[in-house]
Amino acid sequence: MSYSPLIGQLISSLKRLPGVGQKSAQRMAFHLLQHDKQGAAQISESLAAALEHVGECTICRVLSETEYCDVCSNVKRQQSQVCIVESPSDVQAFEQSTSYNGRYFVLMGHLSPLDGIGPHEIGLDIFAKQLDSGDINEVILATNPTVEGEATAHYISEMTKKRNIQTTRIAHGVPIGGELEYVNGSTLSHALDGRRTVSID
Amino acid sequence: MSYSPLIGQLISSLKRLPGVGQKSAQRMAFHLLQHDKQGAAQISESLAAALEHVGECTICRVLSETEYCDVCSNVKRQQSQVCIVESPSDVQAFEQSTSYNGRYFVLMGHLSPLDGIGPHEIGLDIFAKQLDSGDINEVILATNPTVEGEATAHYISEMTKKRNIQTTRIAHGVPIGGELEYVNGSTLSHALDGRRTVSID
Repeated sequence: MSYSPLIGQLISSLKRLPGVGQKSAQRMAFHLLQHDKQGAAQISESLAAALEHVGECTICRVLSETEYCDVCSNVKRQQSQVCIVESPSDVQAFEQSTSYNGRYFVLMGHLSPLDGIGPHEIGLDIFAKQLDSGDINEVILATNPTVEGEATAHYISEMTKKRNIQTTRIAHGVPIGGELEYVNGSTLSHALDGRRTVSID
Repeated sequence: MSYSPLIGQLISSLKRLPGVGQKSAQRMAFHLLQHDKQGAAQISESLAAALEHVGECTICRVLSETEYCDVCSNVKRQQSQVCIVESPSDVQAFEQSTSYNGRYFVLMGHLSPLDGIGPHEIGLDIFAKQLDSGDINEVILATNPTVEGEATAHYISEMTKKRNIQTTRIAHGVPIGGELEYVNGSTLSHALDGRRTVSID
């Protein structure tokens, strides 16, 4: 027996969620239809609402349902300091650490010429205009420490160098709470490179 | 920063999916809104369609969008043999093994007096009428081998005994491909109890 058509469609659409395969999708579909019809309606409606209203912040390209996101429209935040990240979840991670008070710029990806993703696709033409406006004093590069992330960071640092804007890269090293034994070699060599003098008061 | 309201709603509704917590829901929401808007629309629509049209088969209570499901309306299947299972995914599992040609009856749960789930809640009043109609020759009990599943099987076997209908319970034992070493004690004792004479031709 194959599923009845609507259940089959539901299962194959749930498989589009990241990390969900045939078995999980089947489990989700049966769970929703058997035990949680209210939840199913809620998911369907909130997806439709988000699709209709959520777009990108005009300034920083984070997902937002208003023209300017909460961070960009907050006068208490230092709008002259810009942290460049690859995805909206990176913004979320910084915000949860509550250690940053500037604004962001979300690339929604990284440079990847082989996949046809150039500077325009990750919004660097918009960012260039923001740099030219003269409102930005410091750019913090927080792309992922992968080959593509590093290449993207390098590209952006050349844009800022031309315009004489202070540019920094977030530190890479041993994570707090991590054990040296389990840290990989390239992280350790970054940690060594980035060592700082211990000051004794 | 909290999420913008619509994204927050989407994330909390995705958390109602079984096995999905805050982090996965966040990942799913961002993935759909950033990279797969088409998939998001598809999920939203197929959920709404399934909610509107999918109900239960009048005979066997499996999820179906027609009054009688594919199995119950199939004249090539033995409608006098009924396999009783706890959930629609159990039906799916039997169908995938292609070793059964009767029809099913889905309890949508098991007896659980403490949670207020009695015979009526798992459709046993409907099933009693089917037994009384005289169209059923054999009942196969395939509830899960848990305490509740066994209790439910016992309850149903008393219903069929009163009506003199042949009743069997599926065999429990060592799974094919499994290794004895890793099989638990209660499975082994079932396997011993159910041992059969080896016939040599």
